[in-house]
Amino acid sequence: MHQRVNRQVRLKSRPSGIPQAEHFEIVEAPVPDPSNGQVLVRNIYLSVDPAMRGWVSAVANYSEPVALGAVMRSLAVGRVEESRSSDFHPGEYVTGMFGWQDYAVVDAETIEREVGGSGLPISTSLGVLGLNGLTAYFALLEIGQPKAGETVVVSTAAGAVGSCVGQIAKIKGCRTVGIAGGPDKVRVCREEFRYDSAVDYRADDFESALDAACPEGVDVYFDNTAGPISDSVMRRLAVGARMVICGTASIASWDPPPQGPRVERHLLVKRARMQGFLIFDHVQRSPDALRELESWVRNGQIRYREDILDGIEQAPGSIAGLYRGENLGKRLIRIAPDVLPRDPFPTQT
Amino acid sequence: MHQRVNRQVRLKSRPSGIPQAEHFEIVEAPVPDPSNGQVLVRNIYLSVDPAMRGWVSAVANYSEPVALGAVMRSLAVGRVEESRSSDFHPGEYVTGMFGWQDYAVVDAETIEREVGGSGLPISTSLGVLGLNGLTAYFALLEIGQPKAGETVVVSTAAGAVGSCVGQIAKIKGCRTVGIAGGPDKVRVCREEFRYDSAVDYRADDFESALDAACPEGVDVYFDNTAGPISDSVMRRLAVGARMVICGTASIASWDPPPQGPRVERHLLVKRARMQGFLIFDHVQRSPDALRELESWVRNGQIRYREDILDGIEQAPGSIAGLYRGENLGKRLIRIAPDVLPRDPFPTQT
Repeated sequence: MHQRVNRQVRLKSRPSGIPQAEHFEIVEAPVPDPSNGQVLVRNIYLSVDPAMRGWVSAVANYSEPVALGAVMRSLAVGRVEESRSSDFHPGEYVTGMFGWQDYAVVDAETIEREVGGSGLPISTSLGVLGLNGLTAYFALLEIGQPKAGETVVVSTAAGAVGSCVGQIAKIKGCRTVGIAGGPDKVRVCREEFRYDSAVDYRADDFESALDAACPEGVDVYFDNTAGPISDSVMRRLAVGARMVICGTASIASWDPPPQGPRVERHLLVKRARMQGFLIFDHVQRSPDALRELESWVRNGQIRYREDILDGIEQAPGSIAGLYRGENLGKRLIRIAPDVLPRDPFPTQT
Repeated sequence: MHQRVNRQVRLKSRPSGIPQAEHFEIVEAPVPDPSNGQVLVRNIYLSVDPAMRGWVSAVANYSEPVALGAVMRSLAVGRVEESRSSDFHPGEYVTGMFGWQDYAVVDAETIEREVGGSGLPISTSLGVLGLNGLTAYFALLEIGQPKAGETVVVSTAAGAVGSCVGQIAKIKGCRTVGIAGGPDKVRVCREEFRYDSAVDYRADDFESALDAACPEGVDVYFDNTAGPISDSVMRRLAVGARMVICGTASIASWDPPPQGPRVERHLLVKRARMQGFLIFDHVQRSPDALRELESWVRNGQIRYREDILDGIEQAPGSIAGLYRGENLGKRLIRIAPDVLPRDPFPTQT
């Protein structure tokens, strides 16, 4: 059975900024056999995440860079085909760092978790019930510490993390303001993710619209951009504001470091706080968070969107597309049939 | 007795950046009589503080700007000359916002506290046992949250606040690194304030000296500068670092906002925090803090320096001098004889 071909997306050259299609190549390799304690997984969905830019960067980071010629590091969800571990059995669905490839042989203990059985599609394990949802959950609640009645502003508000942040803030009784690019995303923010206000940062009236949306200033700012949108929000901080730094999507390259207005005076006058967040500091507590997130998805308090590309040949160009903002919702690449029931909720694409 | 002249330093014009001598004028006025519930204070020491730049600025701030033609707002310590309040009596020494003038008539309830009786000079009530010491205490301990064994870096390390921060960090078991301008201040940091390392930011080898002083990175950064020194420190943050934003001495003007390297990536990769601090949020808890600070001054664990200018005519140019870094220690203006015993500690100027 292992005469099947394993298509792999490998890192061909190291980008200086945002990885483009030409930085990768697709190579066919044999499907390896699992050794003792290992599992062979047939990947079904591959994840595409903004953080991948950092993973292929040579600049010091929070994880080792992907080596040239190696399979692109990626979360994925797939089906166990063969197991030489007593913890997993053929036919089970699992998530983990399986990489951009058809098949992965991994040590059983590196598998993140078993998914499925909940009736929700397995694709959610890479998005709203995966690192995106967990990021939104821990970063907003632990770093942002929103209180009922406060104004919570979210950049990349229609994105996989941002949309979840806005809805969790709403569950916690906050006034939510989403910032997104273009009328389609702004409409989705309002209608699907039920932000109290949604503002288009590309529109000429962005500044006045932001004023109107935040009449009492900004208590919590959840940021994924690190650019001019943040500069605008920062001028509107309320006393005691908390800024969660979760991503830097608007910065094409950190080498050399981009310049922006210094933030110290805002922080001082408003006794405000900026704090960086990485989900890997919090994963040990994810089972409880996932249970709560799943209950919110089931009862409709959290809706989500997925942007599914078909075929592994879509992978090389998929990160650059994220940074161009062409996706609406969590970007995934489907490389095999999804055999579980499709999502019963009405708001998915 | 009130035929005496009250010399007042009044704000003549509004500076766009750092207030210079020409923005003030000295005017002679009659000494007013206190009304019921008021106290007449003869000022002895006037305080000179970096925050005064903000007080005379027209830009939105945390306090109302000093009006043109008004007496310059200032902390001072003086002697009660006449009292029409049962809470205060002639001969007592008190501190409060008495302004840059010989005599102040104030409502008794606006007096900050009675000082003296401790044997420490009354001038300390404006520095190490006043807002400077309290700022160091609350900002370091509550925002910086230093833990024993951590590396604490302090900018303006020889200053009235910074020197106190370094010594409190030392008391808490931290490794302390002071950053100051010029060999004299660096020497004082090492010899008097007992920093484990002191680095001259004006020296050619500043970057390598900072590396050598912080081999394991920076856990707490206490900043009073908001400029290139911070940019250098930020490149050396340890995971989980806390930055206390307490002042912005290196910024000549915030209008337009000065540019600097964006900080988000540092915060994200190091899961670090930047937070602004204003002492006015904490003053209600100052009695306990003052008791602890006073015990540390008495037992020699906290040393302090004062930079005393003689005569009210020194006041107009004294803020600009602070920003040029010409003082070493808390800057005060003595405008009447200090009748209490002089400081028994050996490290004062």
